[in-house]
Amino acid sequence: MSSSAPPLAGSTLSVNALAAPRVQALLARAGELGLRLQRTDTGVTLVDAGIDAPGSIDAGLLIAEICMGGLGRVRQRTGLQAGWPVWLEVSSAQPVLACLASQYAGWSLAASKEETGGKKFFSLGSGPARALAGKEALFDELGYRDRCDLGVLVLEVDRAPPQVVIDKVLRDCGLAAEGLTLILTPTRSRAGTTQVVGRALEVALHKAHELGFDLAHIVDGSACAPLPAPVADGVLAMGRTNDAILYGGQVRLCVTGTAEAARDLAQRLPSSGSRDHGRPFAEVFKAAEYDFYRIDPALFAPAEVWVSHLDSGQTFHAGALNMDLLLADWHREA
Amino acid sequence: MSSSAPPLAGSTLSVNALAAPRVQALLARAGELGLRLQRTDTGVTLVDAGIDAPGSIDAGLLIAEICMGGLGRVRQRTGLQAGWPVWLEVSSAQPVLACLASQYAGWSLAASKEETGGKKFFSLGSGPARALAGKEALFDELGYRDRCDLGVLVLEVDRAPPQVVIDKVLRDCGLAAEGLTLILTPTRSRAGTTQVVGRALEVALHKAHELGFDLAHIVDGSACAPLPAPVADGVLAMGRTNDAILYGGQVRLCVTGTAEAARDLAQRLPSSGSRDHGRPFAEVFKAAEYDFYRIDPALFAPAEVWVSHLDSGQTFHAGALNMDLLLADWHREA
Amino acid sequence: MSSSAPPLAGSTLSVNALAAPRVQALLARAGELGLRLQRTDTGVTLVDAGIDAPGSIDAGLLIAEICMGGLGRVRQRTGLQAGWPVWLEVSSAQPVLACLASQYAGWSLAASKEETGGKKFFSLGSGPARALAGKEALFDELGYRDRCDLGVLVLEVDRAPPQVVIDKVLRDCGLAAEGLTLILTPTRSRAGTTQVVGRALEVALHKAHELGFDLAHIVDGSACAPLPAPVADGVLAMGRTNDAILYGGQVRLCVTGTAEAARDLAQRLPSSGSRDHGRPFAEVFKAAEYDFYRIDPALFAPAEVWVSHLDSGQTFHAGALNMDLLLADWHREA
Repeated sequence: MSSSAPPLAGSTLSVNALAAPRVQALLARAGELGLRLQRTDTGVTLVDAGIDAPGSIDAGLLIAEICMGGLGRVRQRTGLQAGWPVWLEVSSAQPVLACLASQYAGWSLAASKEETGGKKFFSLGSGPARALAGKEALFDELGYRDRCDLGVLVLEVDRAPPQVVIDKVLRDCGLAAEGLTLILTPTRSRAGTTQVVGRALEVALHKAHELGFDLAHIVDGSACAPLPAPVADGVLAMGRTNDAILYGGQVRLCVTGTAEAARDLAQRLPSSGSRDHGRPFAEVFKAAEYDFYRIDPALFAPAEVWVSHLDSGQTFHAGALNMDLLLADWHREA
Repeated sequence: MSSSAPPLAGSTLSVNALAAPRVQALLARAGELGLRLQRTDTGVTLVDAGIDAPGSIDAGLLIAEICMGGLGRVRQRTGLQAGWPVWLEVSSAQPVLACLASQYAGWSLAASKEETGGKKFFSLGSGPARALAGKEALFDELGYRDRCDLGVLVLEVDRAPPQVVIDKVLRDCGLAAEGLTLILTPTRSRAGTTQVVGRALEVALHKAHELGFDLAHIVDGSACAPLPAPVADGVLAMGRTNDAILYGGQVRLCVTGTAEAARDLAQRLPSSGSRDHGRPFAEVFKAAEYDFYRIDPALFAPAEVWVSHLDSGQTFHAGALNMDLLLADWHREA
Repeated sequence: MSSSAPPLAGSTLSVNALAAPRVQALLARAGELGLRLQRTDTGVTLVDAGIDAPGSIDAGLLIAEICMGGLGRVRQRTGLQAGWPVWLEVSSAQPVLACLASQYAGWSLAASKEETGGKKFFSLGSGPARALAGKEALFDELGYRDRCDLGVLVLEVDRAPPQVVIDKVLRDCGLAAEGLTLILTPTRSRAGTTQVVGRALEVALHKAHELGFDLAHIVDGSACAPLPAPVADGVLAMGRTNDAILYGGQVRLCVTGTAEAARDLAQRLPSSGSRDHGRPFAEVFKAAEYDFYRIDPALFAPAEVWVSHLDSGQTFHAGALNMDLLLADWHREA
């Protein structure tokens, strides 16, 4: 932990400003992408990407790029690879900023029955607007805060957030209502499944952070993972998107620092280092009685990694795909 | 077939308007892409993409996207896969609209010797302008008709269409001459070969329609296929582009409806279900005495398919590549 | 060698004008891509892509496209292939113009100690501005010369060029200082490694030229190669980028002319035809006492090639990957 300054200290990039052109594209292509747009009474833009609207895989790709603050590319690749026909590819020249300061689902947004006047609400917000609010301790560690008149947040929810939550987001972000876009993507939808699997690189960044690796030393990253079919059941849908990364995700990071730290990161990064590795995520989740905090955090990681150490030029490899586990759940011979 | 409404009823997307920016790009990049542009006396734009002009693979990729009404992505992938170095990838969030209402070569354009004052002319028009004319019964089934001041049509021909055919297109589409662009791509050219193989997804949509599958239930699609070298002989060129899809095409569809219908579609979709499967298309065509209508329609299909059923999350797989058949024709050890 | 006219005679495409939008994008994305921009006293724009600035792989992709005069696509692909996780893909519909008239590092720029008032300077300039200067005999062979108010040149250097070299470039290109952009990419940087491996197609074009193949007959091309990690040592860095192409590069060309000439090109094109083939480039270079001109020129070639002859439709294949050689140097099990 040698860095004197936080990894993003001094960054002048605005993830909300950089995401804005892609938000505009998302709205402009709403018809093609199967989205439903709604303007709330106060002027906030809601994008339904899979609740009542059908959404699409392409919508999910664009939402994933928005979620990365315009600092990543997310593409679909078709063609049989390792037994599965559709894969996503992700890359970023700013992996810490794109993945941790923007894409990571870290902003806890809750409202009680009393507050909503109906059902209680909970969602983990992800995407650029997190960096306007800066409510998470992570932002102090990163040394980053965004300032922008526009903000966009992604919520993996089955219904629109209540007004009390929207008001909280506006207040915490310092945004006028017209400046905020909320994108709603249930995991069981195509867009939802796609944008979650589009987190293959982010999952690696998050685990590197958990392992105490100096984030200032991660300077480039790319990833790929198989894209499963969505499934209506929420727990199974979440299980699949997690499995796609835990058992099908491949990540490559370029790092500075010492070669020893790079090798150590590679050894500890893959999901195979977890005691819960080897079972479908939905099964692990059930065994944990649907309590995320009882699952070994080390499980949230890509299956296979390559960590390239820039000065020595060595690329350290660890982990392996477990396509058999994925295909047993995803694939049926007709 | 349970849908009460046609699959595209209510669609407000204009395939000609959505294709227009790519048509502009095609014209602007004419020099790079090896195209020759001509304005007829009356003001129609003709794009020679492989008759007297050389054309290019990149021209074919862009023409394929135009042909899909701006609602699909077509990309080239280089790198050895299954014995062949160059593949195309296609995807669309609007597969029925992009492939059947636009890309399918379904508009029969003929002129007799008397009408042309020379040789008789025949071509099957494909692309967005079909949806302006709406001359095919398919458009009633789809419940779609486009309205736009701009129109673009792709013709797989070896010479420019006669004035009588151009006039018919203008009349049927309700276009002023300045609004019409005709793209001419002989199958024996690079652009022609590319844009035909770019129909890998369309071929699957067309067969699904033939099989009576409810098109309203096909909500997402992607495909890949190997891109052969063009060959000067017209029948062999057509044979190769068909073979690329029949024996090298892989398609993935996302469908709603029942799981049983999805499984049934997967079983019946691949070309292997045809009695003519297993021989090069040029050979089948010759045995049919060059009469398309004597060929088993079930042959026109991708080699391998995955049909993902959205609610159950099951992906049904059927068919297989036959790269040996392709490589026997395409590949020579130097 | 039957062509009566040089291969690019009559071309009206301007590689500098076509590269300009990508140069603008490079400058606009400087923060994201890790670049440092500097305006010299006289007004020349210097882009540090890996000297004091970190640069990035994405910067290298964009620089490679600039280097091809805006006439090529260079993309990164992530996902394990042949033992390595990251590959580049390159394609061009104008391979001779993009690769030889623009991308090839052929412009020798030298300054003595006396001229610099310090250390002597040497670099081989690559990219569009070469075609403004036209100082190389190659341009007469190609029959091409660019005219444009904007120019961009790529230099694989560890320090900014001295004023005397900048002045020479301006003079030879006929540019005002404000019109010139110099992009500096040490091979040991991520951007440098990336843009060199992005020459996989160019290396094939150059060798085809060396073999006396008629360049007018090369009409389409694409390539891929594994992207190694950069390494701080300059000789090793150069060795790796060369190895990526010599032992990991796959190239596909479309050619006109005779089938016999196409087959002959395929046979002679791969690096395996060289007496120096089979050893890492850095080792060959050392054995040649670091004198490029003692290395067999036939070594500079892709590992595996497919040459498609357009009229006959035959695709001639030769060569093979040697991933074992690459992985022995690049890959470590953690």
